[in-house]
Amino acid sequence: MRALVYHGPGRISWDTVPDPAIEDPADAVVRVGTTTVCGTDLHILRGDLPEVEAGTVLGHEAVGEVVEIGGDVRHLRPGNQVIVSSVSACGRCRPCHDHLFGQCRGGGGWILGHLIDGTQAELVRVPFADRSTHRLPPALPLDDAVLLAEVLPTAYEVGVRKGEVGPGDTVVVVGAGPVGLATVAIARLYSPRRVIAVDLSTARLEAAARMGADAAEVPGRMIAELYDGPGADVVVEASGEPEGFVLCTRAVRTGGHIAVIGTPGKPVTLHLESLWRKNVTISTGQVDTSSTPWLLGLLGSGRLDVSPLVTHAFGLDRVADAYEVFSHGTTSGALKVALRRE
Amino acid sequence: MRALVYHGPGRISWDTVPDPAIEDPADAVVRVGTTTVCGTDLHILRGDLPEVEAGTVLGHEAVGEVVEIGGDVRHLRPGNQVIVSSVSACGRCRPCHDHLFGQCRGGGGWILGHLIDGTQAELVRVPFADRSTHRLPPALPLDDAVLLAEVLPTAYEVGVRKGEVGPGDTVVVVGAGPVGLATVAIARLYSPRRVIAVDLSTARLEAAARMGADAAEVPGRMIAELYDGPGADVVVEASGEPEGFVLCTRAVRTGGHIAVIGTPGKPVTLHLESLWRKNVTISTGQVDTSSTPWLLGLLGSGRLDVSPLVTHAFGLDRVADAYEVFSHGTTSGALKVALRRE
Repeated sequence: MRALVYHGPGRISWDTVPDPAIEDPADAVVRVGTTTVCGTDLHILRGDLPEVEAGTVLGHEAVGEVVEIGGDVRHLRPGNQVIVSSVSACGRCRPCHDHLFGQCRGGGGWILGHLIDGTQAELVRVPFADRSTHRLPPALPLDDAVLLAEVLPTAYEVGVRKGEVGPGDTVVVVGAGPVGLATVAIARLYSPRRVIAVDLSTARLEAAARMGADAAEVPGRMIAELYDGPGADVVVEASGEPEGFVLCTRAVRTGGHIAVIGTPGKPVTLHLESLWRKNVTISTGQVDTSSTPWLLGLLGSGRLDVSPLVTHAFGLDRVADAYEVFSHGTTSGALKVALRRE
Repeated sequence: MRALVYHGPGRISWDTVPDPAIEDPADAVVRVGTTTVCGTDLHILRGDLPEVEAGTVLGHEAVGEVVEIGGDVRHLRPGNQVIVSSVSACGRCRPCHDHLFGQCRGGGGWILGHLIDGTQAELVRVPFADRSTHRLPPALPLDDAVLLAEVLPTAYEVGVRKGEVGPGDTVVVVGAGPVGLATVAIARLYSPRRVIAVDLSTARLEAAARMGADAAEVPGRMIAELYDGPGADVVVEASGEPEGFVLCTRAVRTGGHIAVIGTPGKPVTLHLESLWRKNVTISTGQVDTSSTPWLLGLLGSGRLDVSPLVTHAFGLDRVADAYEVFSHGTTSGALKVALRRE
C-alpha cells in the first residue's frame, strides 16, 4: 500500500510499504476513507517527540471501512464504517476501567502514528479494535466524523470539562486553531455569559466568530480589561505557546480555572508570586476519547455544528501538500485539512 | 502601649506607640495574651511585600482578652477570651457569603499586620470583630489556640482540602516548617496509606516524625522512587522554594493533585512539556480561616495533636529575639515561637 512515512526530523514521504495485517486477535484492519493532519504531527516532524522512530507511518485520526478482523473482535464486521479513535484502549487495565484510556497501561493509549503505524495510509491496523473504534451513523458527514477521532473529545474533555465551564461564565479560549475553535463551539452548549477567542491570526479570529465566539481579538482591549477587572471564570490554553499560558494566568479570575490543552514542548513560567492569592486551579490532561459516543450523539442531533473546522480537502496521495497547507494555517486560514481516498 | 513596629526592609523595633481605639462600631480592642511570628513576617522584613508601610505594627496571629467593643458588636463582651483570626471578614460581600473570607471585598481579608496594625503588640484593634474572632474554650492550651489563627486553617484549607487527600493516598509534604507539619498532622486524619515529609533540615525531619509522618527525608531514595514509579496521589508544596515546586511536579502521579501553600515570592518553572500527559491538577489559594471552628472542635476532642509545633516561648517584649530564633529555624529546630504577655 501507499503511506506517509516519517524518516526523521524534517523528512516525510509518500512511500510504498507492506500492507498491514492482523497481528493480534483483537486487531482490525481498516481501509482509510478520510484522515487528517494534526498539530502533533508537526511536532513529530520538528523532532519534538524523539520516541517516534524513523519508518513510522504518521496520522492518528481516521474514518474508514473495516476490511479484516482478528478472532477476538466481537462488535465489528468487514464492511462496517468506523471512526478510528486516536486513543486505543486495552479495556482491562486500571486506567481503562476508570475510562482513562489515554493512560492505558495494557498496550494502548495514543500509539497510532506514534509508537505504531498510523492512519495517513491506505490501510491501518487498529489494535483493541472493539474499544478503539466507533460505528459511524450513515447520515454523519465524514469531515465531521473524522473530528471525533481526537479534536472534539480533546476540546471537551481537556478544555471544557476540566475547566468546568458552566452557565453564566466568562470563558476565554487562547489559540483559535482547530482544537481551540472546537472548544468555543462546545463551551457554547453550556450557556456561558460570553466566549472570547484570542489569537494572533486574523483569519483564525474570523473563524472563531463563525464558531460562535461572542468576541475575538488579538490580545488587546478585552484582555486588558480582564487583567484589570474581575477576570474570566475559565481560561482554556489551546495555543501551545508559553506566552499563551502566561496570558491565561493573568486573565483568570480569583477562584477560576485554567485548563491547559496546548503542549508547548518546553517549560513555561508560572507566576506563583501573584497566583498564590488567586485560589486558581490549573489542569493538564491527555485526551481519553471517552466522550466520543456522547459527542457523536450531539453531532447527530444537530446540537453541535463543527462544519467550519474542515477548510481544505486533498486526495490521500497529496498528503505532503496537506502538511504544507496545514502548517501555514495561521496565515492561510487553513484549519483542519481532510485527506480523502479518491 | 508597646508594639513591634516595621520601619522598612530589614528594620523592626519594640517601640512605644499610641494605644489602639475603636474606629468603627464593628471593632473590638483585644489585649494580646499570646502571639507568634509567621514566615510571612520574614517576607515583609525582607521587603517582599512592598504594600506594607513603614510604621505598621506586624503580626496576624493572636489569642487574647476583649477589652473594648464598638456599638455594633453583638457576640463579644469585655473579658471574653478570643482567638484573633489572621483573616478579617466583613460578612456582607459576595466572597464572604461564599465563606471566601480571604478574598473579602468589604475591607477585610488579610489586613492585620499587613495593611493595618497587627498583633505583635500589647493591644490590637480587630475590625469586624464578631466575624474575625472565635471564643476560646477554657480548656484549650493557648499555644494550641494561637495556631488556629492561621497555621492550622492554612494547612487544612489550602493543603489537605484543595489537595483532596483521602483514604489510601500516598501524600508527600514538601517543606516541614510549621504549616507543612500541620499538613502532615491533618492529612493523617484521612487515613492515607503513607505521609512522606521532605525537607533539607534534619531537625525539621525529626519534627515531622513526631507529627506522624510515616517517613521523612532529605530528597533521596523515596522521592527518586516516586519519580520513577507511580508517584504520589497528593503533593503539598509548603516550602515556598522554586525547587520545592519542581519536586512536587515530578513526584505527583498521573491524575494526582498538587496543592501549593508556599509562596516563593518569585516565578517558578512549570514543566508543561512533560506534565500535559499527566492529567494533574495544581491549586493555589489564600487561607479563608472558614475552617477554624471545625479545627477548634478537633483540638478540643483530642483528635488532633499539634503540641510539638510550638518549640520556643518568650515574653512579648522579647519579640526581636523571637524573630531571630524563628528565622534560623531550619538549623535551630525552632518551629512556632510563642510570645506571651508576662
